[in-house]
Amino acid sequence: MLRHQTPQQDFAQRAERFVAGVNDLCREYLLIRREEVNVVSAHAAPLADAILDLTAGGKKLRPVLAWIGWRSARSEEHLPAAVEKHDADAAVKLLGVSLELFQAAALVHDDIIDRSATRRGQPSTHKRFETLHREKRYAGETDHFGTTGAILSGDLALAWSGQAFADAQQQARQQLELSAEQLVEVQTIFQRMHTEVMTGQYLDVLAEVGPAAANEAEAVAQARNVLRYKAAKYSSEYPVTLGCALAGGSAQLREALAAATLPVGEAFQLRDDLLGVFGDPAVTGKPVGDDLREGKRTELIAYGLYRSPAAAADELTAMLGRADLSQDDVARAREILITCGAVEEVERSIEALLSRSAAEVEKLHALGVDDEVLHDLEAVTQRLVARTS
Amino acid sequence: MLRHQTPQQDFAQRAERFVAGVNDLCREYLLIRREEVNVVSAHAAPLADAILDLTAGGKKLRPVLAWIGWRSARSEEHLPAAVEKHDADAAVKLLGVSLELFQAAALVHDDIIDRSATRRGQPSTHKRFETLHREKRYAGETDHFGTTGAILSGDLALAWSGQAFADAQQQARQQLELSAEQLVEVQTIFQRMHTEVMTGQYLDVLAEVGPAAANEAEAVAQARNVLRYKAAKYSSEYPVTLGCALAGGSAQLREALAAATLPVGEAFQLRDDLLGVFGDPAVTGKPVGDDLREGKRTELIAYGLYRSPAAAADELTAMLGRADLSQDDVARAREILITCGAVEEVERSIEALLSRSAAEVEKLHALGVDDEVLHDLEAVTQRLVARTS
Repeated sequence: MLRHQTPQQDFAQRAERFVAGVNDLCREYLLIRREEVNVVSAHAAPLADAILDLTAGGKKLRPVLAWIGWRSARSEEHLPAAVEKHDADAAVKLLGVSLELFQAAALVHDDIIDRSATRRGQPSTHKRFETLHREKRYAGETDHFGTTGAILSGDLALAWSGQAFADAQQQARQQLELSAEQLVEVQTIFQRMHTEVMTGQYLDVLAEVGPAAANEAEAVAQARNVLRYKAAKYSSEYPVTLGCALAGGSAQLREALAAATLPVGEAFQLRDDLLGVFGDPAVTGKPVGDDLREGKRTELIAYGLYRSPAAAADELTAMLGRADLSQDDVARAREILITCGAVEEVERSIEALLSRSAAEVEKLHALGVDDEVLHDLEAVTQRLVARTS
Repeated sequence: MLRHQTPQQDFAQRAERFVAGVNDLCREYLLIRREEVNVVSAHAAPLADAILDLTAGGKKLRPVLAWIGWRSARSEEHLPAAVEKHDADAAVKLLGVSLELFQAAALVHDDIIDRSATRRGQPSTHKRFETLHREKRYAGETDHFGTTGAILSGDLALAWSGQAFADAQQQARQQLELSAEQLVEVQTIFQRMHTEVMTGQYLDVLAEVGPAAANEAEAVAQARNVLRYKAAKYSSEYPVTLGCALAGGSAQLREALAAATLPVGEAFQLRDDLLGVFGDPAVTGKPVGDDLREGKRTELIAYGLYRSPAAAADELTAMLGRADLSQDDVARAREILITCGAVEEVERSIEALLSRSAAEVEKLHALGVDDEVLHDLEAVTQRLVARTS
């Protein structure tokens, strides 16, 4: 048996080492890209710097999930005997870099779309470029320059994500002798992730500007659709199935991993909706009640609007999308959402999703996935759901 | 000998057949992507429709250049004997689709950045989404919704370009038995194209908003840098070298192709600069003098500013970036640019670039590239430079 660690060994320790590896590789990879930008013109370096700074932080949960998917596949007995199992980790680290860059691209463009001024406690990318515009005393409109810099920075992150993914595939192909069909499968999953996230972002905007849903069920279903495609799938199902596919995992295993992780991804996003209204700005790095200011149509809000008395519902409606909400307004919105039972309903949904995930994890066990891997999946789930930021 | 056509046979006929194949494949490919978007939500179909419409038009010059690079490599004697040379064209057609989608992404985002209202005689993508916003009576700001739709549509085009490229690689790998090193090379070229184009777009904006150049030489060099990285390389050197690399062409051949085509790409863009001021709107599909309204810092303008008497130079400066230029203003700008010799200077640069390209084509002959392929390269060059739109 090649396993070097026991399930008893702490997940945190293993994950920390993996995450440090991804962080180093990501930085190294981006410094090379930055140099390529510099060769064209040193004036363009801020495009790369924005991505370097954005990926330096964050929890790297997607790379960790990819690594769990990767190790799950290695529980299956399809690897060429010649492969020293621990040698091929370079591929899954590159996949981790690719996922981080994909997320960076999505966040940078999404912050333009949602007009978010902050991200992880720092100015969002378009705000960075606005500051640059002022500092350098460039001509023209500061806003528009901010949008321009962020569009191009995000485009670079997206392109670089694709390159890191191709590198990961190349590594895996050489070390694990993946077949042409396996390579096409992993590529197809990667592309579908892009299509779904960008479509989900668009639906998120439509939910804010389009006609109101006809009833509570429709409003909740709409919000769940946005949550699933814009955020949950690429934060759970896609990383874990990409990791699995990259190691040549079977379709059966990929489906089981997806079934076990998507509910966690959705629970994570529902928690995010709660934090968007109830979170502590010191912890979330976002202004208090930011989701209300953006007018986000979450499930929490859907319940709030349909379960409150008319007067309170009208009050809540009037607050959505108002950029100048005061602390008192936010406190009032919280009161409305608690009183009508919306918060409780969302907490119930989170519980239901976690139960569903737990049932699916049982099936992974039956498919022969290592105890250590299942232990780590459980630990990630805990980390995801207990989060406060 | 497997060649089915003679050099005497018309290039137009061969190219027409190839372009029709690329167009069909592109449409077919995008209809599948559109269906994937539809599965998430039918309301999001406009994201895909914008790309379908944008890629339906255009001259497909990049795919044709890729095809010439591909055929050049096939002149080299490195193909596995088993390969029926004409069988593998699926790979270069997929590369053509990828290049078209890459260009679509660049244009969609560039039109937001440059605030261009039209593209190929049609409303630009953000304008399409503004129209949708009005027609559907969506809430919120029309402008911002337009920007949102175009950012996401462009992101999808970029992601889909990457997918089509991976498909092309996969085809080529299977049919031409490319080595791992060859696959990494072609991927690296593809990624470098992204980095350079996005950096070039940023430099284009900096040239408009940043401090003025210190002198004519610097202004011209700056404009050439933008022209090269933002447009010329991905319109000439990159398609032809990608086509060559995808067929396993040698580094020596790729370099020779780049040297022969980049000058043509630059000449094409200089012609574009002339058309941006002197072009017939009925032919270019852009309003008369659009480049002046956008304030584009082209070589033409650099010469105009430095070679005109002070009064005329001031007049020209005042016109740059003014959205409300009249027909008379544009006529006056034209007069200034002709009188000072700026137009003549740009025409001379175009001539010099074409001479340089012709000298490099000789070297391709020496490397053993087929007469038919060189004949076609010559024909594309003619088509590129004689263009009026």
